[in-house]
Amino acid sequence: MASPSSPASAASPSIHTASVPPGSVGFVTPQRIQFEEPLALSSGQVLPSYELAVETYGVLNEQRSNAVLICHALNASHHVAGMYADNPKSVGWWDNMVGPGKAVDTDRFFVIGVNNIGSCFGSTGPASINPATGKPWGASFPMLTVKDWVLAQERLADYFGIRRFAAVMGGSLGGMQALGWAITCPDRVGHCIVIASTPRLSAQNIGFNEVARRAIISDPDFHGGNYYEHGTVPKHGLAVARMIGHITYLSDEAMAARFGRTLRAPNANGEFHYGYDVEFEVESYLRYQGEKFSTYFDANTYLLITRALDYFDPARNHGGDLAKALEVASAEFLLISFTTDWRFPPSRSREIVSALLKNKRAVTYAEIDAPHGHDAFLLDDRRYHAVVQGYYDRVATSLGLPQRRSVTGVLA
Amino acid sequence: MASPSSPASAASPSIHTASVPPGSVGFVTPQRIQFEEPLALSSGQVLPSYELAVETYGVLNEQRSNAVLICHALNASHHVAGMYADNPKSVGWWDNMVGPGKAVDTDRFFVIGVNNIGSCFGSTGPASINPATGKPWGASFPMLTVKDWVLAQERLADYFGIRRFAAVMGGSLGGMQALGWAITCPDRVGHCIVIASTPRLSAQNIGFNEVARRAIISDPDFHGGNYYEHGTVPKHGLAVARMIGHITYLSDEAMAARFGRTLRAPNANGEFHYGYDVEFEVESYLRYQGEKFSTYFDANTYLLITRALDYFDPARNHGGDLAKALEVASAEFLLISFTTDWRFPPSRSREIVSALLKNKRAVTYAEIDAPHGHDAFLLDDRRYHAVVQGYYDRVATSLGLPQRRSVTGVLA
Repeated sequence: MASPSSPASAASPSIHTASVPPGSVGFVTPQRIQFEEPLALSSGQVLPSYELAVETYGVLNEQRSNAVLICHALNASHHVAGMYADNPKSVGWWDNMVGPGKAVDTDRFFVIGVNNIGSCFGSTGPASINPATGKPWGASFPMLTVKDWVLAQERLADYFGIRRFAAVMGGSLGGMQALGWAITCPDRVGHCIVIASTPRLSAQNIGFNEVARRAIISDPDFHGGNYYEHGTVPKHGLAVARMIGHITYLSDEAMAARFGRTLRAPNANGEFHYGYDVEFEVESYLRYQGEKFSTYFDANTYLLITRALDYFDPARNHGGDLAKALEVASAEFLLISFTTDWRFPPSRSREIVSALLKNKRAVTYAEIDAPHGHDAFLLDDRRYHAVVQGYYDRVATSLGLPQRRSVTGVLA
Repeated sequence: MASPSSPASAASPSIHTASVPPGSVGFVTPQRIQFEEPLALSSGQVLPSYELAVETYGVLNEQRSNAVLICHALNASHHVAGMYADNPKSVGWWDNMVGPGKAVDTDRFFVIGVNNIGSCFGSTGPASINPATGKPWGASFPMLTVKDWVLAQERLADYFGIRRFAAVMGGSLGGMQALGWAITCPDRVGHCIVIASTPRLSAQNIGFNEVARRAIISDPDFHGGNYYEHGTVPKHGLAVARMIGHITYLSDEAMAARFGRTLRAPNANGEFHYGYDVEFEVESYLRYQGEKFSTYFDANTYLLITRALDYFDPARNHGGDLAKALEVASAEFLLISFTTDWRFPPSRSREIVSALLKNKRAVTYAEIDAPHGHDAFLLDDRRYHAVVQGYYDRVATSLGLPQRRSVTGVLA
């Protein structure tokens, strides 16, 4: 295993304060870390070696006690906060959550964003070269589970010399990884923060994933997963998959408020065109999202990650008893759900809360009345962020970290 | 226009009582009726002539006052009740609702099932020959609206010499047609029965339709809608479209109860296979439904009907005021919704109820506590059928039709 050149952040926000908004970690540089030791996977297969793309924000303290790991969901990456110097629009996916003075305060915490294996944003995945063949892995890339990601991330903790994370945190699939940490590496996580997540997918959730996969797999450009060699991309299938996903991320209410039945470009009489080109704003939006996604996301990654979602079910090896599965967990927990999230509704978070309470674990649970659906976990909601910030204040106090400095304009 | 050979049913259930279950209309024979007068459509296009596939059950009385029109939803047809002599499994899609002694009692009512233009079960549609070219219409078949279907059906009423329907009835898209009848031909419908429907699709509804259409249109076998000439069928796209639709027809609860996370055929250790072949029962079910559908349903019909769903919005020409749109309606109304229907939830039916009450129309509204989701309108639910039966008893009484005879085993 490689050794860290510096455990501190590659970015130094103070240098760039003139050109970055307040509360931003500023310009950041991702790093890639190579792990040579083979990784035994849940499937029985072995990944001979792997690379993880990582970003860090803030400074790891001497005791290495202030580290926070942020786990990403389906289509995100290690780029959690800040922006890249060559593209000021490249803002991290949880930039509203992570930064100096923000809910996850990089003035006090050392935050790691990591891209998972199997993904397509820099870590080893299906588009990477299989060292055994010299060709892209493609369809032969091994199947993955949430536990596999946790084990790969554990080596990242070792790399940084972090014995125990102050917190492991994520939304949606990221929340599953946080929960996975609490179960698989119970002594290495102080606080487990699980947002808009579920202890297992429902039949409906699996159904939507399966339709998305069928759309990709039945695209003739997919070539059984080996499209890299054919110089094709299953764009149509990937776009359809993304459109399906997108609908499930938004609440009915949010779609009504944002699009309603507004026409995109009615004819001269304000009427329909009567055809299959875009009539309604919502069609235009979904098509755009689907097409954009198909230009940058890897289809094999989409398949792998949706399958890992399907497989996640820590209670499965405990006769379906989630409380038993969580018996080993020693972390304290924060769970957050959103009222209009119909993908992973509050009832799913409450299952986790109940299972933890059966084990007499310390649990904080917040159900945020938000209109946005599942996507709410990514959005700027004052009450939501206040809950997270309050929780991190408590984490910081318990670890004896310095007081939070007041930052004007951020969560005032 | 052709003249009816006999306005009564083509089927005579009594002949077959030995071989058909009690309450069935028995063996039925569809008829096709040709309409030569051009039909001006909402789009501005004109359908030069058309044929309607029709089934009838029961006997039209002398006053022609006991006729009920049943309108179908996306994937159904004129085959509402009974079965075909050559295939005893070919039971009509609303056979549990329509028959002697059933909620829609064919001992008292003359029931017409009609396949809409644009469909693929016998009426003129995209797969029919365009008389102007001698080739299948394909992509050149005109776009349709609910109002177009109502106008085409109105000629069917004329054909049977029915001045006024005792009732026009339908579920989902069929309910939209019933509502369309009450608005477009107010003096020709006595009772309007709208089940599991909506006054207009939501952005989410349109979104799901659009994803289904993209799946079909981006299938290379679609050939811009002219796949008949290419000897292909866009099966993959159609299967994906059907899978999406199917998920929206079922409630989360119903899918959980029916499939849960049950594995289809786990490996010898009861574990996952780790791959993209079927792991979960729900995947197997959805794939099967999708594949089956793609063998008999026409892709252009799927596009046409989903677009007609999108377009339906009677309030649109009244500044969005549904009450204004319903001002012309003189029918009495029965509305029914199902608690777990998230496609067209009870709130959508209540919008119609409110708009009717603003116009001081007679409205009966039932919200059925059923676990099945949108599909509930097709299922055998005692309370639901009792509401419909009670309503039809009132219709029969007001028309002076004979009393319902008691049939053992049916809605006892």
